[in-house]
Amino acid sequence: MPKPLLFNAFEMLVPSHQSPGLWRHHRDEGRRYTELGYWTSLAQTLEEGGFHGIFFADILGQYDVFGGSAEESVRGGVQFPQLDPMLLVSALAQATRRIGFGVTASVTYEHPYLLARRLGTLDHLTGGRVAWNIVTSYQDSAARNLGLNGQIPHDERYDRAEEYMDVVYKLLEGSFDDDAVTVDTEANVYTDPDKVRGIGHQGSAFQVPGPALVEPSPQRTPLLFQAGASSRGREFAAKHAEAIFFSGYTPEMTRTWVDSVRDGLASAGRRRDAVKIFAMATVITAETDEEAQQKFNEYSEYIDAEAALALFAGWTGVDLSDVDLDAPLEYIKTEGNQSALAAFTTMDPSRTWTARELARFIGIGGRGPVLIGSPQTIADELERWQDVGDVDGFNLSSAVRPADLADFARLVSPELRRRGLLESPDAETFRGIITGGESRLPADHYGARFRNIQG
Amino acid sequence: MPKPLLFNAFEMLVPSHQSPGLWRHHRDEGRRYTELGYWTSLAQTLEEGGFHGIFFADILGQYDVFGGSAEESVRGGVQFPQLDPMLLVSALAQATRRIGFGVTASVTYEHPYLLARRLGTLDHLTGGRVAWNIVTSYQDSAARNLGLNGQIPHDERYDRAEEYMDVVYKLLEGSFDDDAVTVDTEANVYTDPDKVRGIGHQGSAFQVPGPALVEPSPQRTPLLFQAGASSRGREFAAKHAEAIFFSGYTPEMTRTWVDSVRDGLASAGRRRDAVKIFAMATVITAETDEEAQQKFNEYSEYIDAEAALALFAGWTGVDLSDVDLDAPLEYIKTEGNQSALAAFTTMDPSRTWTARELARFIGIGGRGPVLIGSPQTIADELERWQDVGDVDGFNLSSAVRPADLADFARLVSPELRRRGLLESPDAETFRGIITGGESRLPADHYGARFRNIQG
Repeated sequence: MPKPLLFNAFEMLVPSHQSPGLWRHHRDEGRRYTELGYWTSLAQTLEEGGFHGIFFADILGQYDVFGGSAEESVRGGVQFPQLDPMLLVSALAQATRRIGFGVTASVTYEHPYLLARRLGTLDHLTGGRVAWNIVTSYQDSAARNLGLNGQIPHDERYDRAEEYMDVVYKLLEGSFDDDAVTVDTEANVYTDPDKVRGIGHQGSAFQVPGPALVEPSPQRTPLLFQAGASSRGREFAAKHAEAIFFSGYTPEMTRTWVDSVRDGLASAGRRRDAVKIFAMATVITAETDEEAQQKFNEYSEYIDAEAALALFAGWTGVDLSDVDLDAPLEYIKTEGNQSALAAFTTMDPSRTWTARELARFIGIGGRGPVLIGSPQTIADELERWQDVGDVDGFNLSSAVRPADLADFARLVSPELRRRGLLESPDAETFRGIITGGESRLPADHYGARFRNIQG
Repeated sequence: MPKPLLFNAFEMLVPSHQSPGLWRHHRDEGRRYTELGYWTSLAQTLEEGGFHGIFFADILGQYDVFGGSAEESVRGGVQFPQLDPMLLVSALAQATRRIGFGVTASVTYEHPYLLARRLGTLDHLTGGRVAWNIVTSYQDSAARNLGLNGQIPHDERYDRAEEYMDVVYKLLEGSFDDDAVTVDTEANVYTDPDKVRGIGHQGSAFQVPGPALVEPSPQRTPLLFQAGASSRGREFAAKHAEAIFFSGYTPEMTRTWVDSVRDGLASAGRRRDAVKIFAMATVITAETDEEAQQKFNEYSEYIDAEAALALFAGWTGVDLSDVDLDAPLEYIKTEGNQSALAAFTTMDPSRTWTARELARFIGIGGRGPVLIGSPQTIADELERWQDVGDVDGFNLSSAVRPADLADFARLVSPELRRRGLLESPDAETFRGIITGGESRLPADHYGARFRNIQG
C-alpha cells in the first residue's frame, strides 16, 4: 500500500517569488498579486487539485545585499513590492472549504500578545485551517526599519524565540479552560471568570500578566511549521515544530538531513515521526517529458541573472556583484561565505560554480530542486523522494505563476490519485489533515504542558 | 434638495458590543462573532441596505476597572473574548462589492512600518475600500500585556502619535512615485528603482530608513477616521482626520461640539467641511412607533447592570462597584471623576444620576443615544440631527445583534431613499464615497505634503 503524500503550494504576495525574471513570461500572472481574485481563484484551483495547504512565505525587508543596495531586487521585482499574507487568509477561507493556510510570522518583530490574538482570530475565522510558520527573521533591512541597529544575534534570537513560544502556549493553551465560554443565558454567564486566568508571564523579554483575548479556537495553537537549517534552528524545530520544510539537492542528501531531524526529535523525547517533513520543489510538467523539457528550456530564456544573484545575496549574505560571471567562484569558498552557504543545501557541493551558473540555477525555482517531466515521470520522482528521502510531502512553487501549480493540479494530481498517493484526509482541521491526529496539539508536545496552568 | 446622509454600521468582533446583557435576547446572534459566515452575511445585508461602511471598533485589553478586576466583564461578555477585526476585512471584501471597511488600529502598540504595510495590503485587497480609525489606546490592561508599566501619559501618546503619522505618510504617500511600478517586460523593469526611495526617517520615537514594502494602492493612505473628544485629541483630528465620530446626548449639544471641530479645522488651515462628522446612535425600529417602543421595553429586560457598569468603568476609569445602586451619584462629582466623565458626552448633565439609572442608560446602546420609532419617526429624527447637529452621517450600532442593523436596512433605508437621504455615491473608493472627493488624500491635507519627498 502506498503512503499518501502531503502537498502545500508555496506562495508569497509578491510579483516574483522563487524564479527571478519569469514574471516577464507571457503566461505569468504574478503581477496580479495585489488582486483578491487572483488568490481566491488559485486557492480554488489548488483545492480542486487535492492540495492540502497553501503556504505563504513572508519577509519584512528588502534584498539589499547585492551591490550594497536594493536596486536590482527592486528592478527585478524580487519579493518586492509585497503585501502582508496574513490579511488574505479570511478571504481564501471564504472561497474554499477545507484547504489549509500556512502563514509566516516573525517572533522577532511581533509582540506575542498580539500575534497570539492574530493566530487565534485566523483559527476561528477559518474553522481551524491555519498553520504558523515560525521564523526568527534574517534580514538586516527589516531590523533597521523596525528600529533596531541590525539584527539581534542569531543565538540570542532563538533564546528570545523560546520565551516567545512559551508566552504563545500559555495564552492559547493555558489561559482558557475548554469549557470556559459557556454562553449560559439562564445563569447570565457568557464566560466563566473562574475558568479564565491571566498567564502571569514574567520573563526576560516579555511580561504578559493577562489571559489571551481570544477564546479557544478549533486548534488553539495553530499547526506549527518551521524551516530552520542551522543547528540552533533544528534544536528549536525538534522541540516545537509539527511540520518542517527543507530544500535538498537530492533525495539522498535530503535523507541525511531528515535522519538528523528524526534523531533530534528522539533526543527531545518525541516520536521519530512526530514531525511531517516537506521537501521544497518546483515542478514543471506537461503531457510528455519532451514537452515538459521544452517548457523548462523556454522558461530558461527569461532568467534574470542579476535579480537571481540579488535573491541569492539576500538569502546568504554573499554578494557576487563584483565577480566575473564566468569565472570559477573561488570567492565564495572563503570561510565566512562557506558558513553562510551551509544553509544553501541545494547546491551540488562536488562541483565548482560560476556566478552565471548559480544565477541560472536560482533563476528557476530558487533554492530548487526543479522536477521536470510528464505526470508519470513527476509521480515517479515524487515517490523516489518519498522512498529515498523519507519525506512526507512537498511544498511546491510555480516558476511561471500560477501556471505551474495549476498544471500540477490538472496533470499530476490525477496520476497521484490513481497511484493512491493523493488523498483528502477526513479531518476537521489543518492539524488533523497534516498530522493525522487530533485538532489540538498532541499531549506529548511541549506546548501541551501549558494547559491548565495556574497564573 | 435634501443632502444625503452617510451611514456606517458600528461593530466589533465580540459577543457583546454596546449593549451589555442583550446577548441573552432570543434574537441576538452576537455569540456567532467567531464565524466568518456571520460577518459576510451581515456585510451583504448592510450593503443591500445602502450602508456606506462597516466600522470595526477594537481594543487590546480587558475592562478590569470595575471592582478592580475583569470578573464582571468576562462574565457579561463585555467586549471579551474578542478577535482581531483587521483579519476579517478581506473576506468581507470578497463577499461584497462596494461597502467600505473601517479598521481600528493603535498607534501606541503597532510599529508604523508594519501598520503601513497592513493598511496598504488591505487597501489593495479591497480595491480601495479601507478606512483607518486612528486610536492611541486607553486601557491600562493593554499596556501591561504589551510590556509597559501602565500607559504612556496622554499628551505624550499624542506627541508620539504625531511622529507616527509622519512615518505612515512618508511611507504610503512619499516612498513610491505614482509611476514607479512599471511592470515593463521589454525593459526588464518591474519597479523603477529611481522612483522608489527610502524615507530616511530619524525621529525621537521611530527610525525608519527604507521605503514602504507595499506599492501604491488605490487610496494610498486609507481614509482617516478618528474619535477623540479630548482637546489634544481634537487638535490631532483637526490636522489628520477626514471623518470623525462622536457620541452626543442631543443634536443641540452635538452642535456645540461640531462647531468647535469646524473651528479647529479652520484654525488648522482646512475647510470647515473638510471633515465628515458621524454621530453615534443605536436605532430601534419597527413598523409603528408603538411596536418600536415595545421592542425597546422588551430589550430593557435584558440589561445587565453590573456588566454595564463594568463597561462604564473601563471607558471612564470611574469604578461604581461599591456605591448604592439607588443613591444619587455624588461619588462621581469629585473633580477627578468629573474630568474622566467629561468625555462621556451623552449623559444629561442637568440631572443627578443613580448608578442603576446609569446602568440602564448604558445597557442599551452604550454611550447612546438610542433612537426609537417607526421608519418615518427615525427618518425625521435623523433629519433633525442633520439640521440641528450639523452632522454628515451616523455610526449605527445594534442593541440586539445583528437584528437592529438588519431592521434598519429593511425598514428605514427605503424611507431614507424615498426622501433622497440615502444614496450610493458613484465613487471608486471609500474615500470617494465618504468625502465626495478623489481616491487619494486631498492636496490640502497635511499628509499630502509628504508626496515626492527626497529621503
